Amino acid sequence: MTSLDNIRFVLVGTTHPGNIGAAARAMKTMGLKNLHLVSPKIYPSAEATARASGADDILHQATVHDSLQSALADCHYAFGLSARLRHLPVPVINPREAVEQLEKFDDDTQIAIVFGREHSGLSNEELDCCQFLVNIPANPDYSSLNLAAAVQVVAYELRMSFKPEIDFGRIGEQREAITAEDLSHLYDHFERSLTTIGFLDPDNPRYLMRRIRRLFNRADLDRNEVQIMHGILRAAETKARNNNE
Amino acid sequence: MTSLDNIRFVLVGTTHPGNIGAAARAMKTMGLKNLHLVSPKIYPSAEATARASGADDILHQATVHDSLQSALADCHYAFGLSARLRHLPVPVINPREAVEQLEKFDDDTQIAIVFGREHSGLSNEELDCCQFLVNIPANPDYSSLNLAAAVQVVAYELRMSFKPEIDFGRIGEQREAITAEDLSHLYDHFERSLTTIGFLDPDNPRYLMRRIRRLFNRADLDRNEVQIMHGILRAAETKARNNNE
Repeated sequence: MTSLDNIRFVLVGTTHPGNIGAAARAMKTMGLKNLHLVSPKIYPSAEATARASGADDILHQATVHDSLQSALADCHYAFGLSARLRHLPVPVINPREAVEQLEKFDDDTQIAIVFGREHSGLSNEELDCCQFLVNIPANPDYSSLNLAAAVQVVAYELRMSFKPEIDFGRIGEQREAITAEDLSHLYDHFERSLTTIGFLDPDNPRYLMRRIRRLFNRADLDRNEVQIMHGILRAAETKARNNNE
Repeated sequence: MTSLDNIRFVLVGTTHPGNIGAAARAMKTMGLKNLHLVSPKIYPSAEATARASGADDILHQATVHDSLQSALADCHYAFGLSARLRHLPVPVINPREAVEQLEKFDDDTQIAIVFGREHSGLSNEELDCCQFLVNIPANPDYSSLNLAAAVQVVAYELRMSFKPEIDFGRIGEQREAITAEDLSHLYDHFERSLTTIGFLDPDNPRYLMRRIRRLFNRADLDRNEVQIMHGILRAAETKARNNNE
């Protein structure tokens, strides 16, 4: 499997320098750093730097080429983005399938993802330089993702594949696990308390306790929460008992 | 399985109207149309319309609210985007896992995806209104996706997933779904009851209500269970009031 460092994003004939900056930002958020520009209309540009918003290191390292061939020279595979389906005999895949393809490549495989012009995309000649054609699924009535949005979607797919891990599960404060016995005590307490406050009729309990169990089994309580529930039940019992006396 | 039409995107406290327009565009490219705005700083705005770039129908249909509660009132589940990990014991999932979760919901389930402010995201109180916390995996050194980029990523995941021919659905007993408003009423009742029975000190509430919310947000209550909880609280109150008199 190749790595994010072996993947370059190639922007061809970008018209608005702001989009180059926004693309750099989108790349950097996902941990990509290799940006290549083919004949950008205006570059460098203060607007690109402004829109990069802290990702200007990506811009500084970017290489400008005067042809797509030059940008792809040392790449093993190129994936070309295509806003709509074209009559070309290359496989058209979605970004997820593209990333699945990438995962099959060897460690040192150099990859290019090629994005076309804002309005006209990639020419047929440029698409001919690509082994894979990638289409981002979109609303057929309105498929105009802007350039930075397309870059963001592809970069996101790459990150999901290469580094999907975030800290899952319970984050932040420690949650102390409880045992089945703790839960069992809580349910016993519920049963006593609900009887005391007159909500549960021991002679006609129906399914109440079963429903309570299901609800709290599902809720995945921690120790602190179990203590809170005991506290609430005790407070209700105390008030009720004083009243019953 | 619910449908894209049952999914609303809620933007909370958006500062730059251009981002609202760009978010509308990102939504529309993926076939989403329900946009809700909570206290946008500047709106409506020519800049929003300009950036929407043909998705101005989404803007025209957008609903403006003065609170997140209002925006979520008739939703069954809310997914809150969180740029960084926070100290909250709610499950944090990535957008793909969020969509897998969505696929399990019934046809009529109303879903909100909640996006926070450009710089500060969602407050802890706002995240407390969400049953799921979603984090977009990002470069730990530079995780600043802009708002429209985050909207694009989530919208893309939704589109990738929603294949109408696949019929999911919950199995087992019928559980009648509840809305955010139902939960909100339950929490209000909790607060009153716990005060009445002397477990909650209104002058020193600490984090009790927040803990209660977290617990029951996580528990995925159905209508019957909400009624049971109201019943228990009423019974406890009644006993306590008789005692207090």
